[in-house]
Amino acid sequence: MRTFVTGAAGFIGSTLVDRLLEQGHAVVGYDNLATGRRQFIAKALKNSRFEFIEADLLDVRRLNDSVPGAEIVFHLSANADVRFGTEHPRKDLDHNTIATFNVLEAMRTGGVKSIAFASTGSVYGETAVIPTPEDAPFPIQTSLYGASKLACEGLIAAYAEAYGMRAHIFRFVSILGERYTHGHVFDFMRKLAKDPSTLHILGNGLQRKSYLHVADCVEAMLIAMERANAKINLFNLGTEEYCEVRESAGWIVGRLGLAPRFTYAGGERGWIGDTPFIYLDTRRIRALGWLPRLSIRESVELTVDWLKANEWVFDARAEH
Amino acid sequence: MRTFVTGAAGFIGSTLVDRLLEQGHAVVGYDNLATGRRQFIAKALKNSRFEFIEADLLDVRRLNDSVPGAEIVFHLSANADVRFGTEHPRKDLDHNTIATFNVLEAMRTGGVKSIAFASTGSVYGETAVIPTPEDAPFPIQTSLYGASKLACEGLIAAYAEAYGMRAHIFRFVSILGERYTHGHVFDFMRKLAKDPSTLHILGNGLQRKSYLHVADCVEAMLIAMERANAKINLFNLGTEEYCEVRESAGWIVGRLGLAPRFTYAGGERGWIGDTPFIYLDTRRIRALGWLPRLSIRESVELTVDWLKANEWVFDARAEH
Repeated sequence: MRTFVTGAAGFIGSTLVDRLLEQGHAVVGYDNLATGRRQFIAKALKNSRFEFIEADLLDVRRLNDSVPGAEIVFHLSANADVRFGTEHPRKDLDHNTIATFNVLEAMRTGGVKSIAFASTGSVYGETAVIPTPEDAPFPIQTSLYGASKLACEGLIAAYAEAYGMRAHIFRFVSILGERYTHGHVFDFMRKLAKDPSTLHILGNGLQRKSYLHVADCVEAMLIAMERANAKINLFNLGTEEYCEVRESAGWIVGRLGLAPRFTYAGGERGWIGDTPFIYLDTRRIRALGWLPRLSIRESVELTVDWLKANEWVFDARAEH
Repeated sequence: MRTFVTGAAGFIGSTLVDRLLEQGHAVVGYDNLATGRRQFIAKALKNSRFEFIEADLLDVRRLNDSVPGAEIVFHLSANADVRFGTEHPRKDLDHNTIATFNVLEAMRTGGVKSIAFASTGSVYGETAVIPTPEDAPFPIQTSLYGASKLACEGLIAAYAEAYGMRAHIFRFVSILGERYTHGHVFDFMRKLAKDPSTLHILGNGLQRKSYLHVADCVEAMLIAMERANAKINLFNLGTEEYCEVRESAGWIVGRLGLAPRFTYAGGERGWIGDTPFIYLDTRRIRALGWLPRLSIRESVELTVDWLKANEWVFDARAEH
């Protein structure tokens, strides 16, 4: 099958690319390398079934030239900088909403009929229903990131309706694993590298979060695309567990062999728009026969191990 | 109070402008006159408390210069061309999503903290819960118009959360009344003017729709803004009734003194993305003490009367 992957050099994107190539598919990867890393596609680049296009989704001409010929578009590219959304509100609009519109237009004009989209559990805002099913009460948005992903979901569903496309929309919890380049494990390890004696935690450390390993995430997407054939297929992706941030911090320092003092910024939320409790109801995807192989703790520890072995990712990323 | 109204020369916008001036407020009206009409603000223009700015919401410089100083922004400007969304998908993105982002940015940078927004019952897609409450199950979008309004709602809520704004979001059914310039009454009367012997109806005529008179709509908005003070205030606006399209067609031809033969295009939907049954649960707004004064039939007939007395609006509008 001929596939097109946006964000192909990113954390999840590059993992998906490797998996698609493994399964024998042809892959065109599209990435502007703003946050994606060429190192992540080093193996893919040696595969004759992989073609890489270094370009931006806002470059409409380049995009329109690149999409036709694909049977499925996996749209994973996004501004995933959830926490700092309030500092540059235009970024989510451009790189999530408008970029997604551009992808859909490229598909429409290019005759491509199937899209898989990486959305987020953040679209549920601060829902009162936990674990949160896909048809939870109509939520109110609490972050620019969530709002932009909601806008993308709406566009995708409307395009599917209007132009006879099929859509698979995946609402992820936070993803962990190899090639992880941002998020709390990354932040904690960077802080500990500077000062192993103290770990300062945003919020009160009691925020409850759910996580999923990137390999489990990619597997779930591929299974859903194979087995769910409605016009619009919506799936939560996550594990059947959650942990407190301070618990996760404990696993991280334990794996690193450190014993820092924890200090807390206080407050229920780590930042404006942070959700104090994320835990998704994943019965729908599990009904298709998918189960995550790794627990949250295992995923956190594998992430720590990978970051320890790949310290270059800390250098390559500018601090906020 | 100093107010700022986008879409000030439009159907609902100009009605709101007149009402705000009547109540003694100062109003800056902003409209690009793409679908708004200068005639609708003729009376307002004679009022010293009204200032009109003819400009586009995509003209960021002009907008940023115009918004500061207002205490409340009423954001009514929109591409309301629901039916032809699939012919120009970029229009909803530009004139709804991006325009709303621009309004929010002008408010943020200009220190304006309160926004009222005209959303739509279309954001519920084809919900299974009818009458539909504000917290109905998380809907799937079925039209580009609904998707763009959903994107706006998400942006507004996220801005309220991030930057300490207050938002009043109103999900309207279709609005009728004086200054009505598009929709089924308009379309039917234009067809009948050409050929009074036949009326061709999109869909099977059994689509069930709810309507509200523009004066009731404006009153509801003002009451909600006075009496509801949460950070994000969401209200459905509609009557406690609905009618079939063929029923409404009957009232229209009756009021015109015509007896055409009805023909039907067939199908449950009038067009791609049309919703066969719209009926909103309005208990939340009614709990604030608001009640519509006019029934759907009265609203339809007043609209017919106004269009008959103002045939110039048919000439001024290019046909699709």
